[in-house]
Amino acid sequence: MKMPKVIKLKPSQLLVLTFMTGITLGTCLLKLPISTTEGISWVDALFVSASAMTVTGLSTVDPSTAFTMFGQAVIALLIQVGGLGIMSFAVLIYMMLGRKVGMKDRLIMQQALNQTNIGGVIRLVKYMFIFAFAIELAAMIFLAFVWVPEFGWVKGLFYSLFHAISAFNNAGFGLFSDNLIGYVGNPIINIVISFLFIVGGIGFTVLVDMWQKKKFRKFSLHTKIMLIATLVLNLVSMLVLFVLEYGNPGTLGSLSLGDKLWASWFQAASPRTAGFNTLDMGAMHEASLFYIIILMFIGAGSASTGGGIKLTTALVILLATVTFLKGRKEINIGRRSLDSGYIIRSLSITIVAILFVISAIFLMTITEDESFLEILFEVVSAFGTVGLSMGVTASFSSLGKLILVFIMFLGKLGPLTLIYSLATPAAKSTYRYPNEDILTG
Amino acid sequence: MKMPKVIKLKPSQLLVLTFMTGITLGTCLLKLPISTTEGISWVDALFVSASAMTVTGLSTVDPSTAFTMFGQAVIALLIQVGGLGIMSFAVLIYMMLGRKVGMKDRLIMQQALNQTNIGGVIRLVKYMFIFAFAIELAAMIFLAFVWVPEFGWVKGLFYSLFHAISAFNNAGFGLFSDNLIGYVGNPIINIVISFLFIVGGIGFTVLVDMWQKKKFRKFSLHTKIMLIATLVLNLVSMLVLFVLEYGNPGTLGSLSLGDKLWASWFQAASPRTAGFNTLDMGAMHEASLFYIIILMFIGAGSASTGGGIKLTTALVILLATVTFLKGRKEINIGRRSLDSGYIIRSLSITIVAILFVISAIFLMTITEDESFLEILFEVVSAFGTVGLSMGVTASFSSLGKLILVFIMFLGKLGPLTLIYSLATPAAKSTYRYPNEDILTG
Ligand SMILES: [K+]
Ligand SMILES: [K+]
Repeated sequence: MKMPKVIKLKPSQLLVLTFMTGITLGTCLLKLPISTTEGISWVDALFVSASAMTVTGLSTVDPSTAFTMFGQAVIALLIQVGGLGIMSFAVLIYMMLGRKVGMKDRLIMQQALNQTNIGGVIRLVKYMFIFAFAIELAAMIFLAFVWVPEFGWVKGLFYSLFHAISAFNNAGFGLFSDNLIGYVGNPIINIVISFLFIVGGIGFTVLVDMWQKKKFRKFSLHTKIMLIATLVLNLVSMLVLFVLEYGNPGTLGSLSLGDKLWASWFQAASPRTAGFNTLDMGAMHEASLFYIIILMFIGAGSASTGGGIKLTTALVILLATVTFLKGRKEINIGRRSLDSGYIIRSLSITIVAILFVISAIFLMTITEDESFLEILFEVVSAFGTVGLSMGVTASFSSLGKLILVFIMFLGKLGPLTLIYSLATPAAKSTYRYPNEDILTG
Repeated sequence: MKMPKVIKLKPSQLLVLTFMTGITLGTCLLKLPISTTEGISWVDALFVSASAMTVTGLSTVDPSTAFTMFGQAVIALLIQVGGLGIMSFAVLIYMMLGRKVGMKDRLIMQQALNQTNIGGVIRLVKYMFIFAFAIELAAMIFLAFVWVPEFGWVKGLFYSLFHAISAFNNAGFGLFSDNLIGYVGNPIINIVISFLFIVGGIGFTVLVDMWQKKKFRKFSLHTKIMLIATLVLNLVSMLVLFVLEYGNPGTLGSLSLGDKLWASWFQAASPRTAGFNTLDMGAMHEASLFYIIILMFIGAGSASTGGGIKLTTALVILLATVTFLKGRKEINIGRRSLDSGYIIRSLSITIVAILFVISAIFLMTITEDESFLEILFEVVSAFGTVGLSMGVTASFSSLGKLILVFIMFLGKLGPLTLIYSLATPAAKSTYRYPNEDILTG
């Protein structure tokens, strides 16, 4: 197969170019009269386009009323392109770097890894697309059992497809003004939507590994960690939110015990990039909001549709901290030791993310009048491409909206391009300065 | 000289024990009827004692009205013991670890470094004490020119001594209900107080280095970095606060241009541990408060009376980030390269600090009703032993106050003991697990 010319760009450049093109096209499409019910501003069109393409889900207008079905279809398309695009690029970049992605002993990836040719990549991406479409279609059928009786065939099926795409790609866009609050206790919605965004967010390499090896004890370390950490973190978060919000009349307080449990589960799993909500974020306890901010920052799995610094990064940092506090140098996990390169990489990614988020918050506190917590929440939500909001997105100034667009863009593409540049062999300095110590801490 | 038995404890254990003893004694002394005008609760006595001993400066009661001159003298004594104690221990720990502290080619430290005996340490600490008392006495004389005319000889001299001790030790305790707001434009107060806390906060090793080498180009790398970074950060922060608060009627707005500049300078330099204020924190712009939170987190210099993660740590992290983003592995500064051990140490200290602060904030948002920004500000202020407050310290619950006591304690002792444990040779594992990769980022 002949290599297309565009591939001669560095993968990270190609990634940025693809997203910029997609967002620009999306902005123009959403600005068409056919897309909106009453027209929207260029800034709002750009915002929604960027939010959809980066699978964030924040919106400065109400997607359920501001857009026609055509406009909503454009959003779904942007989500699909953005979500699968980022997943493909992640796999591509990890492969180009010759990284083991947890299944190197198996046929598909082995070919791809050892050849690093465009054919192997395209084959793998093809499998990914087939898998994504299959799972979205299956989910659509389940969701149709709820929405076809409610809205009839056309709107019902469209809603089912839209939410299936939005959920699998961790986009968090919904077609109800209150997102999924109306379905807080609905088992089908809760199970299907959370299943979709967890599968989409756990990382494609994990799925391939599970598909091929079937048995847990044969899984790669990465797969085992992702499965256990996802389960543990979701259950712990469910418990935390259940306890904190139990008596809050604005959230869990008025619900039955069953609905309380559904809502706690959903709202615990969703902040790690999905961004759907079945509870009113604005009515939540400050402690819950802060906890959710931390979940949003952590995010989902590597090489997935999710964002944030990633679950494994957070875990490595936590383990590194415990190890350092114990005075030991080596990190062991699941009877395996971790290379120190991972530790430095994880620490670097986290610090870069924190510095970026801090700068964005500082800027937003200057330009916007919203409370500090609302700004912090919105910025982390945009950075983690989560899409949860305390309800202030629409009231930001145009400058504030543009800053958020920039944060979503960097939040989605930054960590991946950073990984790329960190893992690329450094250009050797031609000179070397003598070493001298300074005091720190 | 015979080594006292107590020294057989690990330095970090001795440090913790000293502070616990000091805080307990201080609590009992402040609880005495002779110390207070109308009595205070045990929690408040503990809080003020811990705040003084850790040279933080936060207070749940107004030190100017709640305490008699005896009580205030107890506070000054606790500040002096805490401030000089932490400085001595820092030097002791760095010496015991055989670290170069930037002046190893000179007599005093060379003896101490090469012998690591108790005699060398005691001699060095003696010089430190003489220097501290001398500078505090000199500052007291300058301050007396303001306060003796205002309050008469006894109260005037006492106030001058108290604030000199409080400033050199970066304690931030004042004997006015509004701290130093009343002296916002007073040149003597501004110059003397800010000179004291900068000298006290830059680190004893820097002072010794400057004293011995006289010329800038001969200074060690650590000294050069501390001098330049302190100056640059203070001037940049002055500009930031000047611009952000220029039109704020609650802070700079109503002041003359001269007073605006004095206030900007003072309030820019003070958050890096000193904790005095000449402006009303509660009236500040959100962006300024957030900027000050960052300054409080960064803190002052290593082996000083100041707190925070330390200026050099922040600088190494910033340089590491830039280096990593450029795809290079080696950090160069001032024509010297930095050992990768420093980078990992700096990253670790920062991450541990962030994790600790985050946990504390989460707890406080559960127990307290204050706004998120007020809690964030207070927690970082306690962690960095800064003492600035948006004015809510007194209104916290007893549980909240106890959490803050714990934060101040760990904020003061944590980084130093962490440095100690990080730099101690790790116990070798008897087993070694095989290496396996996972994906991060
Ligand atoms: K999302
Ligand atoms: K202080």
